[in-house]
Amino acid sequence: MALTALEFLGLVAFAASGALAAVRARLDVFGVVVVGLTTALGGGVIRDVLLGIHPPTTLRNWPYLAVCAATALVVFAFHPQVARLRRAVLLADALGLGVFATSGTTIALNSGATVYAACLIGMTTGIGGGAVRDLLLREIPLVLRKEIYAVAALAGAVLVAIGHELRWPAGPVTIVAAAAVVAVRMLALWRHWNAPVARPPGPELRT
Amino acid sequence: MALTALEFLGLVAFAASGALAAVRARLDVFGVVVVGLTTALGGGVIRDVLLGIHPPTTLRNWPYLAVCAATALVVFAFHPQVARLRRAVLLADALGLGVFATSGTTIALNSGATVYAACLIGMTTGIGGGAVRDLLLREIPLVLRKEIYAVAALAGAVLVAIGHELRWPAGPVTIVAAAAVVAVRMLALWRHWNAPVARPPGPELRT
Amino acid sequence: MALTALEFLGLVAFAASGALAAVRARLDVFGVVVVGLTTALGGGVIRDVLLGIHPPTTLRNWPYLAVCAATALVVFAFHPQVARLRRAVLLADALGLGVFATSGTTIALNSGATVYAACLIGMTTGIGGGAVRDLLLREIPLVLRKEIYAVAALAGAVLVAIGHELRWPAGPVTIVAAAAVVAVRMLALWRHWNAPVARPPGPELRT
Repeated sequence: MALTALEFLGLVAFAASGALAAVRARLDVFGVVVVGLTTALGGGVIRDVLLGIHPPTTLRNWPYLAVCAATALVVFAFHPQVARLRRAVLLADALGLGVFATSGTTIALNSGATVYAACLIGMTTGIGGGAVRDLLLREIPLVLRKEIYAVAALAGAVLVAIGHELRWPAGPVTIVAAAAVVAVRMLALWRHWNAPVARPPGPELRT
Repeated sequence: MALTALEFLGLVAFAASGALAAVRARLDVFGVVVVGLTTALGGGVIRDVLLGIHPPTTLRNWPYLAVCAATALVVFAFHPQVARLRRAVLLADALGLGVFATSGTTIALNSGATVYAACLIGMTTGIGGGAVRDLLLREIPLVLRKEIYAVAALAGAVLVAIGHELRWPAGPVTIVAAAAVVAVRMLALWRHWNAPVARPPGPELRT
Repeated sequence: MALTALEFLGLVAFAASGALAAVRARLDVFGVVVVGLTTALGGGVIRDVLLGIHPPTTLRNWPYLAVCAATALVVFAFHPQVARLRRAVLLADALGLGVFATSGTTIALNSGATVYAACLIGMTTGIGGGAVRDLLLREIPLVLRKEIYAVAALAGAVLVAIGHELRWPAGPVTIVAAAAVVAVRMLALWRHWNAPVARPPGPELRT
């Protein structure tokens, strides 16, 4: 129950981040809704395709789509106010990342995936929607460029998998793991943690 | 039978639109054929992946690929003449959109998808090939930028789903729904219907 | 056994090519690892999604990922030296193309795909990882732009399919077919074989 509430929050957060990015790219209202939906639902669709769940769960539940479309429309109408809530949006995005990475891992484990595959599929569920959003808008995906993002998702997925192996109760483990993802991601944003970049390439690499 | 003829017309139209876009992007003849094939077959492959039809139908029927490859080669050879047929290409693209959105919805319903999922999968079948084409060529997908495109596809899918629920005969319903998609799309092109764009973002959004 | 060794070599080659491209795009160390992994494993994941193998094989075998991640880290640390090995990287990339195109065809045939679908899926397995790499880094995929690349992969897939139809022993056929892919690709690079490009489009095409 608490998990369903969390999942809705994650969907809203991802839909808002997709819609905001689409507004920035000067798309029309339909484009904003499509990018919002794709960002919110993309990770779950990729997860279900990898696990062989047909058709994808998120396409079967209309409340999911209604919530995401409504969120995108609100962002379209009130985007200057939403943009001023920059910190809230980043927090919500981190929450979505945590919720989807951990719930994706649980769903993969329940579908009979190995622990190993479940962690990768969980991480992909968390970061997939944002990656699709950036591809659609012709950006190099944020997950490849920015502070500790995929690593935070992977950490949450690994925590869920450890809890599953040790037969800890799934509910509390998921909440703790999602909270860990949010904490790592917000700390990375706040302290500007960044991974090292390679030395500038020599001329022979600049083909 | 009429549907199979329509489907071939849709394939040819999409293959031509992909090949023309590839010629514009200065790709070589293989690139033109690959983009033509991907545009024509992409929507159907995405549909079959979402529905769990393995391997995708379009990859199993060689006439589909032969027709698409031949179309792309013709466009490569005669592209100035084809480009002058701009209106015919736009009409054919609208026809392809209508055919694939409606046939995709029917296939999804026959595979046991809920009405709700079938509409989304049908819409995706219609717009998928063009979205992949634009991603490959580094364009922001047309479906996100332009006149009533995804909405026309969704309308056709919903008509098919309504007919299915009311147990109307599938053949005529599909033809009417595909015609409706073409009509909406051509009207949108002709009258320059466009959805509203958000007000220019304030400076706080231009990170 | 020889095939497993070849497959590892192919994975290493593709991981290195992805990591090098990511270093050029100035990604941080995580981005370099993610692009390296995606390039190496992407073709196999696409193959398994098309064939309905859930979850994808490559996500279930940790040695695959460990080898790819280690390769990407080595490239990150020593990229100027690796870039100087430009010829070795191109050779390794061709080897990966040959290995994955032919092994993908075999796996598709063993999964019950028709000869026709197996060739297409094999070709896609070979070129898929590189296409994803280029999409992530906002490049027009190399496979669409450059010397005989998809065609070399398709030729290898067709050789495997012919051998399968004639009931030749699978092992030697695969090795010969993979060697043919490498030979075609290296000849194309060495002799600068390029497919023809269409005449410059007239003004009516430059919308």
